Amino acid sequence: MFESSVYRNRRKALREKVSSGIILILGNNEAPANYPDNTYKFRQDSSFLYFFGHSHPGYAGVLDVDAEEDYFFGDDVTMDDIIWMGPQPSVKELGERVGVKKSFPFARLKEVVGKAISQRRKIHFLPPYRYDNMMLLEDLTGIRASMTRQHASLELIKAVVSLRSVKEACEIEEIDKACNIGYEMHTAAMRLCKPGVSEQYIAGILDGIAASYGNMVSFATILSQNGQTLHNHDHSQILQTGRLMLTDAGAESVTNYCSDHTRTIPVGGKFTDRQRDVYSIVLACHDRALELARPGVTYKSVHLDVCKVLAQGLKDLGLMKGNVDDAVAAGAHALFMPHGLGHMMGIDVHDMEDLGQCYVGYDDETRPSDQFGLASLRMGRRLQEGFVITDEPGCYFIPALIDKWRAENINTEYLNFDAIDKFKDFGGIRLEDDILITPEGSRFTGDKRIPITIEEVEKIMNEQ
Amino acid sequence: MFESSVYRNRRKALREKVSSGIILILGNNEAPANYPDNTYKFRQDSSFLYFFGHSHPGYAGVLDVDAEEDYFFGDDVTMDDIIWMGPQPSVKELGERVGVKKSFPFARLKEVVGKAISQRRKIHFLPPYRYDNMMLLEDLTGIRASMTRQHASLELIKAVVSLRSVKEACEIEEIDKACNIGYEMHTAAMRLCKPGVSEQYIAGILDGIAASYGNMVSFATILSQNGQTLHNHDHSQILQTGRLMLTDAGAESVTNYCSDHTRTIPVGGKFTDRQRDVYSIVLACHDRALELARPGVTYKSVHLDVCKVLAQGLKDLGLMKGNVDDAVAAGAHALFMPHGLGHMMGIDVHDMEDLGQCYVGYDDETRPSDQFGLASLRMGRRLQEGFVITDEPGCYFIPALIDKWRAENINTEYLNFDAIDKFKDFGGIRLEDDILITPEGSRFTGDKRIPITIEEVEKIMNEQ
Repeated sequence: MFESSVYRNRRKALREKVSSGIILILGNNEAPANYPDNTYKFRQDSSFLYFFGHSHPGYAGVLDVDAEEDYFFGDDVTMDDIIWMGPQPSVKELGERVGVKKSFPFARLKEVVGKAISQRRKIHFLPPYRYDNMMLLEDLTGIRASMTRQHASLELIKAVVSLRSVKEACEIEEIDKACNIGYEMHTAAMRLCKPGVSEQYIAGILDGIAASYGNMVSFATILSQNGQTLHNHDHSQILQTGRLMLTDAGAESVTNYCSDHTRTIPVGGKFTDRQRDVYSIVLACHDRALELARPGVTYKSVHLDVCKVLAQGLKDLGLMKGNVDDAVAAGAHALFMPHGLGHMMGIDVHDMEDLGQCYVGYDDETRPSDQFGLASLRMGRRLQEGFVITDEPGCYFIPALIDKWRAENINTEYLNFDAIDKFKDFGGIRLEDDILITPEGSRFTGDKRIPITIEEVEKIMNEQ
Repeated sequence: MFESSVYRNRRKALREKVSSGIILILGNNEAPANYPDNTYKFRQDSSFLYFFGHSHPGYAGVLDVDAEEDYFFGDDVTMDDIIWMGPQPSVKELGERVGVKKSFPFARLKEVVGKAISQRRKIHFLPPYRYDNMMLLEDLTGIRASMTRQHASLELIKAVVSLRSVKEACEIEEIDKACNIGYEMHTAAMRLCKPGVSEQYIAGILDGIAASYGNMVSFATILSQNGQTLHNHDHSQILQTGRLMLTDAGAESVTNYCSDHTRTIPVGGKFTDRQRDVYSIVLACHDRALELARPGVTYKSVHLDVCKVLAQGLKDLGLMKGNVDDAVAAGAHALFMPHGLGHMMGIDVHDMEDLGQCYVGYDDETRPSDQFGLASLRMGRRLQEGFVITDEPGCYFIPALIDKWRAENINTEYLNFDAIDKFKDFGGIRLEDDILITPEGSRFTGDKRIPITIEEVEKIMNEQ
């Protein structure tokens, strides 16, 4: 946790951005896995962490915009809690640690919200994503649980996004720590990636590293020889020489700040010529993004520029044809890269995704696209100093998608399907780093960059 | 997954145990951690696994008791799913793999349930513990989400408990596998338990072993120098010579069968005299349970017998006094062991806890107690061949509880508070193994027993 002034200042800034009413920030509760008391590792809501700091189930916070006061809600522990869960500070103390003077038992929340409703004051809340909080909101407001997301306050969403998007120095330090854990995870994967080893074994070891040094993985690790499946959570394969292993994995720091890196490496430690060709294109895409990313540039323009590097590279390889600018405008390259260049990162690995991608990654100036591929760009808007974003181009050969486009004659003027067909057994490559937008451009987060050039990767994979 | 006949036979047996109506077995969905798409590792509902086998979100099963037919509900994947999540078998194929002939899109479930309701047929469902399934049940049945647990079918609960309690040979094999992963976890903890190492580091490594060889931990690992806190999930301490480290941890096999073991070991590899004294008492308790557990005996009687071994040992140490039988009848020993001797284990680590402990661990003959300590015994009923249960006695020195009992003069005739006070810095010891009830008595599950005698523990901790 940070100093109490950090939270006090953030809440003050939030109150100033919202016109009137009360702001309800619900913490998360335990999440049952297979019965009520067998719960997943607790993950606090990120906005609650941002404004109220405490990572523990059963809390809520209220900001009274008009009275310029904040309240902390939670229940003190009982003797039974002490026996089973250990001693805990009082709710009053917890509130004070984050600069809140007034604390109340959790049950009082209903009174506070009910009173505000009876006074016709606006109740601002963020879109809930935990079903228990939807049910709690129904209980507090009378809005049906299944409808609560639609009743979230757009004014509050925009205010929270404007604050959380620009990272404070203390936050950047935490992201650096998470990236250092990510370094340990990815270099371990490089050392373990030998023929005959199971994907699951390595993925499990990465889970262990994340849990040992931080909190947990920042998302379910993608580690697969089938890198062409973008969010592949299957780890059932045994590694084979000649295949590529794609690892997209990150950790959370102890305070829940995230990292998110991807590396794609050759099983056995030596890239084939064909792998080198495609890898070099993706690395050039990655470098192009790093070159362009700076305050004032839209990330959509960076994405489109990177797509041109991809299309040019694939044209040189004989897989695409025609005018590169036209091909990218038509979305032909999206056969190979159906996702976007990156996303915001912070207390969430896709930062604030619960608040709505169109408010986090877009604004009045830069609007989301409907085009296949570009529609999956999570972050399009103009970059600002203090943003932390991912740069993650990729190139995939997805047999089902190739067959579909060929059968439906999609973008045939830019695609050499006969040549592409020969790559159906290739898999996919993605390379991803996390960057902080600085006054001059950008810098990598974390102390050391995870090996990424062909030489660096082959070197670490062949070390004893 | 097992052979399709396993699931078919189980469903047939279930239909025969329920008088009439339809039985709804809901699978689990993805569980969001910090935003809708960032989900915890998927954990299927255990009863769904038992009757319908598939470990994947978005499924439900229906057993029509009167028509003697079963239905499988789920949605086939789209091209977008293939790009992001990879190809999947059709729902029809999935149904057939578990012996179900009729499969339908998920949306049809509402029709099927609605029709049964309109025909005034009984809709049997198990108590939901995932909030999204409570909301789904509201949508399907009109019962308010927050009230759905109370409307669960007692007839169905009892039928499911009677089937799942007695483990089939194929299930015991899986439990053995989970216990073998548990062996790796606990022996790793013994090797890593050195002064200066953090609890979190070791706990993380155990998570990694569970994930590498199986599925995930069967419950959040308890690993702490503060073993006196029974379900301590805090891992913030650095190990110190002279303290004990209590590790209560288990894994799930790939098919989600569980293990659950506890060991308590001396940081630095050498028990002190005082630690040996208490450890020997707990080990004697453990051995006593193993000696008594056999078909036909109530586990409540085993628990009470074990408590007498504990009370006698503590009397010999000078911490308790008076008649041992009377002390146990009064519950005086519960100051040191406020929990029960064990619980059922299977596809859940506390098997079927979602169905209600009073139906799983108790029956018409053996009823739960209200007495402090004995009230926490999860399993009291008569043992049967094929039950898998834990044997986990413990002895703890909980300062807040000791102070409370002393202040309130509780059981003073059996407790030497002056002597007990000197143990307030001791921590706690628990020893736990999983056992299968056999025709003659019991056997340990798993291939090898985790080191447990003082000699075995000190040996492995001091190996290079």
